[in-house]
Parts: sequence; structure tokens; C-alpha cells
Amino acid sequence: VIRAVYVVRSDASRVAELARAIAVEQTVESPDALIHPDIERRFVGRLVSIEPLPDGRFAVTLDYPPEAAIAPLPQLLNLVYGNVSLLRSVRLEDLAFCDAVLGQFRGPRFGIAGLRDLLGVRGRPLLGAVIKPRGTAVEELARMAGAFALGGGDLVKDDHNFVPAGIGQFRRHVTLCQEAVASANARTGRSCLYLCNLSAPAGEIGRYAECALAAGVRGVMLAPLALGLDTVRDVADTYPLVVLAHPTFSGALFQDSGHGIDAGVLLGTLFRMAGVDISIVPAAGGRLAATREECLRVVRRLRSPLGSLSPAWAAPAGGLRLDAVPDAVAEFGEDTVLLFGGALLTHGPDLERSTSTFLDVILRHARDHAAGPSRNAV
Amino acid sequence: VIRAVYVVRSDASRVAELARAIAVEQTVESPDALIHPDIERRFVGRLVSIEPLPDGRFAVTLDYPPEAAIAPLPQLLNLVYGNVSLLRSVRLEDLAFCDAVLGQFRGPRFGIAGLRDLLGVRGRPLLGAVIKPRGTAVEELARMAGAFALGGGDLVKDDHNFVPAGIGQFRRHVTLCQEAVASANARTGRSCLYLCNLSAPAGEIGRYAECALAAGVRGVMLAPLALGLDTVRDVADTYPLVVLAHPTFSGALFQDSGHGIDAGVLLGTLFRMAGVDISIVPAAGGRLAATREECLRVVRRLRSPLGSLSPAWAAPAGGLRLDAVPDAVAEFGEDTVLLFGGALLTHGPDLERSTSTFLDVILRHARDHAAGPSRNAV
Repeated sequence: VIRAVYVVRSDASRVAELARAIAVEQTVESPDALIHPDIERRFVGRLVSIEPLPDGRFAVTLDYPPEAAIAPLPQLLNLVYGNVSLLRSVRLEDLAFCDAVLGQFRGPRFGIAGLRDLLGVRGRPLLGAVIKPRGTAVEELARMAGAFALGGGDLVKDDHNFVPAGIGQFRRHVTLCQEAVASANARTGRSCLYLCNLSAPAGEIGRYAECALAAGVRGVMLAPLALGLDTVRDVADTYPLVVLAHPTFSGALFQDSGHGIDAGVLLGTLFRMAGVDISIVPAAGGRLAATREECLRVVRRLRSPLGSLSPAWAAPAGGLRLDAVPDAVAEFGEDTVLLFGGALLTHGPDLERSTSTFLDVILRHARDHAAGPSRNAV
Repeated sequence: VIRAVYVVRSDASRVAELARAIAVEQTVESPDALIHPDIERRFVGRLVSIEPLPDGRFAVTLDYPPEAAIAPLPQLLNLVYGNVSLLRSVRLEDLAFCDAVLGQFRGPRFGIAGLRDLLGVRGRPLLGAVIKPRGTAVEELARMAGAFALGGGDLVKDDHNFVPAGIGQFRRHVTLCQEAVASANARTGRSCLYLCNLSAPAGEIGRYAECALAAGVRGVMLAPLALGLDTVRDVADTYPLVVLAHPTFSGALFQDSGHGIDAGVLLGTLFRMAGVDISIVPAAGGRLAATREECLRVVRRLRSPLGSLSPAWAAPAGGLRLDAVPDAVAEFGEDTVLLFGGALLTHGPDLERSTSTFLDVILRHARDHAAGPSRNAV
């Protein structure tokens, strides 16, 4: 069973009719005359409740029966928000799953505990960075990745705009960046992780993933809304790679609060089901339009119980600045990747030293936070 | 070069700053201090114009230079609407491409002319139908497909909610439906086409496509927003199949007129670049929330010049009724698939006869329309 909550705008007198229309549209999409009792029972969404909301809208809760709910991920997306996306003012606000549905998904391969094991870092948020801008020579990008690793950083990733001109350039790029980080790790004794941007034509993603693995790369960044969420699930299921999800394109689905899918459901629950270990969350107060509440909804869903699926990391990003660290640590707790782009790269002329400075701030606030009364805000 | 037009909500005093922010966010996502002149020239979007609109918003036109614009489809989606999706009130309203960008895309394999050749039907809209509801025994679905073909229908497709429990059930389903249509064609001498719903886990789509081809199937339905648009492009490029796109899930991207992507750009231009031969368009006046103007924007973009890419079919659907045929023929012209679901299946007890009735209405109005003054409304 999948329980879905839709927030709808409707006249009170017609909301029951709309709820029934959603239950049918999403499952059998047929006039009632064609829906025999056996099909009704096996496939059509069952109305659980209709609740009026303070803002005049209604929360419609439906249960989709097992035969409809147990399906590959693309068909599951179709079930929970397919054709109703083509209505107006129907927002998917919550999803919950029975174990039989969740049992089809492996979820994060590493998750919070696995990534801590890989990095050997406990009791504090992780420090992440981006090497950019696109167009910089690969030798210089690799040097930046190495400097970051020497400065004590935990994760360094490609810019999501980086797109190689074919697999030869990809191989060279990931090899040089991985070598720079590995060589820094050999000096520091730490395990900084390099994550390459895995963006390739649909039929070639596997070949690129294998190329990255062969170069020693342990993690990849994927953009679920550009590639397709099930393509991400397939990479995560197939390869022993840490999977970081980039939210590019996804705002089209949640920036309209009257329509679309709640950011927490999308970037939290659904990404985690697809096997995402780290989900980049647009950070409030940065360049992007996220609110604090929206960000927290994603963070909660990355960590809250979801069958036997591992909890995953949130990585607030998008114009994150050093002076935002205290609030971020207080709000999101220690199981967070603080992901810096421009703020770290422009902090000073020496990236290794800038990284040390950023890490010190994180360490200091993680200690303060651990000592304080509310150890885990979320 | 890709020319993108964004409609934005902004104070007049800050719109130039927002335009620059978009140009940078979409390409190099870095503070100005990191953007060397060479990178600026090669990658950053160039401001073409900012025009005030009657509703108080602004149209911002940017040109993305060739090195940014020539990219695989997922990265192209990222370029034109990636991170700005995470801002508020930025809508992608128009896209135009230079030949070098379009030259990377094959576009529709069949398109309007190729599908007419396959079907042997000229000078009128096509009659399409859906076999459903889900849960009906496959023998009965196959019988429906055969009756439709006997009645003179042109295209019959699976319901997009149909999802087989593994490839064995898929093979049986497509084999029986294809055989029913082929056997009807043998009797009528016509070439009705059966399109199966191709929805499978990301790593198995090719295997399902080959299974369908082996069963004699000539066309498939794919859901670009559930599977990933580049997965559709990959199927369209790889297999000699007619590709019909279902708009499920896509409304999340265009139902908010202040944000997201124009329906014409998405279901028209981008789907066509991905190789879609027939794009289902939510029809105004049906169950879905489409307006007439929105529907026409998609239709226009499926047919208007786009490099050397073939024009593609629009298939208005979603509660289309028989009495809507005259308007649909007048508005959309002859190169349209009129796709009926429930209206055809509930028209009477004999689907073959109902199909004949529907075809007669189409034939009559196509003749009236051809005789009238405005042969092609679009």
C-alpha cells in the first residue's frame, strides 16, 4: 500500500468528487462504467479521509492498493503524481509506504553510517567543496581538489555544469582529480572523497560509471531530474559508488506551493528510495529561493524511518557562506554535509588554508552544539 | 548557440542583475571573481535583451554560447532550466537552437510523413484509442485492440497505467495485442498500429523494447517525465519504433504560469528533439486543466521548423469526446491524432461499430474542413 496525501483547492461541495477523480485518474483512468468491482478493489485508490485546512484547501488522503503500488520506480512516480500533475492545484504533500513497497528498493548503499566509515569522520558535520568554474583547465581543477583534501576537507565534487566532450576527456578529468585527492590522502592519512559528475547519454551512463570506478573514484554526482530518477536508482543499485544527488531542474516541481510535489517528498523520500546517499538541499539564505522550513522538511525525510532503508545525508548548498555554519550546525545537526562553492574558493588565495579555516569553524561549532541542550535539532 | 527566453517577476531596478544571475547560474555557477574573461566568453550566457511585459513581468533573452550549448540532452536540460528552477518566478518561455545544436538530435524517426506512409492514411486526422482499464484480462484487451482495428481505427495503445509483472507477462501482453491487430489488418487490408506501454526499470528498457520488436510491435508509448527524457531519446535513436510520448507527471513543470517550463517548449520542442513521433497533448475541455491556447502552443511547436528535424504529431487527449471532433479538426488540422479513451469504450456495446462511427465523424469533418477556407488552422 502507498498512502498519498494531496492538498487540493476545491469548493467544499465538490472535494469528494475531486478525491474520487484523483483515485481513478491515477490508477485506471476510466469512466466508472468500465470499472468492474474486481478492478475497483485491486487497483483503484481508496479514500481514507478529506480534511479541511486552515488556508481553505483540503488534504485528501488516498491508499493505493498493493497491486497498483508495487511497481518499478517510473511507474510509481506515475501512480503518485502522474496524470494529476495535469490538473490544477493538486499538490502531493506526503507519501508513506508499506514494507512490501519499500522492500523493492535498496535505498542508500552507504547512507550516514557507511559514509562515516568510509571517511573515518565521527561526531561532526562534513565539509564539502566544489571544484569550478567550468572551463578551468583540468590540471588546475585537480590541484584545487588536492589542496582541499590537504586542508582537511571531506568531500570534493565536480561542478554539475561540467560535461566532458566524450569518455576520453571524462577519463582524463576523473583520473587527474582522483589522483590529486588520493595523493593528498596519502600525505594526510585521511580519506577525502572525490565525487565526479556522472552525466552522460542514457545508453552510456554505465560505461562512464565503470570508467570512473576504474580510475579509483568512489563516488558520483547525478542529477535525478535531468537524467531520470530511475537512472539514478539503476546506477546506485549497480555500482559500489557513493551517490550524491544534485537538485538541478527539480525546483520546477516544488516552487509552486499550490501544485507539484513537496520538496521533502521529492528530494528526501523519493531520492532516498532511489539510493541517494547525499541529497543536496537548496539552503535558505543563499542564492536560491529555499525557505528554512522547506530545507528542514527535506532533512527530516532523509533521516526519518523508512522501512529498512538507511538514513541519508543532507547537504545544504547554493550560496552557503562560512558565517552560516553556526546556524546550519544548530539546525541540521552533525549528520550534514556543509557544501561550499564560491564562498570557499574566494575566501583567500590559498585553498588549503581556506579549507583549514572552514574546518576549524565546523569543528568549533560542532563541539559547542554537542555540548548544548539540543543535540539533534531535527 | 541556444537562445532562451525567461519570463521573470522582478523589480524594474533589479531585473538586469537577475538576468546576469541567471546567465551565470546556468553555466558556471561561480562568483564573478572566479570567472576569467576566457571562461566568460566561452561559457557564460550573453544577455540579448530585457523587455517589459504587459503583466508587469520581464522577458529576459539569453544566448548560451556553443561550448555550453552543445551537450547531451540531460546536460542541455540542466543548461536551460537547471538551477534557475530553484529560484522563484523564473519561467522558461521559449527556446531556439542553432543548427549545430540541433544537428546532435535525430528527432522523430517517422514524424508526420513517415507515420502516414506506415499507415497508408492521407488527408485526415488519425483515430486513436486506448485499451483499458488496467486489470482487464489480456485476452479481453487484445480483443478490444482487434475490434478497434476492424472498425477502421489507426492507432491503438496500452493504458499508461499498465505495468507488467516482469518481462514474461510483458511478452504475453504485447504478443496477444499485436496478433489481434495484425489479424484484423489481414482482414481489412489496412495497417492499424499497436503501441505498447514501454515502462521498465532503467537498466531493462532495451530488453523490453527488443521483446516488443520480436513480437512484431512497431510502436511504443513512453513517459518522458517518469523515465527521463534522455531515456526516451535513447530508445527512439536505437530502435526502429514509432515513439508516442505520454505527458504523465509533466504538468508539475508547466501548470504554474509563473514558474517552470512552457508546455509548448516541453511537450513540443524538447519531446520532438528527443525523437517523439506523437506527443499526447492535454486537450482543452476534457478532464485535464489544459487551455485551448496551451494546447495550440504545443501543436505549433510540434510542426514548426526545427532544423532538419521532422515535424511530429499532436494527439489531443484526456477526456476527448466525439462531439469535440469538429472543433478539434478545425483547430488542429489534419495532422492530428484524435485519441479517445473512455468516450470510445463506453459509446456502445460493440467496439468495432463504435470505432466505425467515430471514424465516420472524423472523415466527415476532415472533408468539411478541407473544403472550408482555413485548411490548416495551426
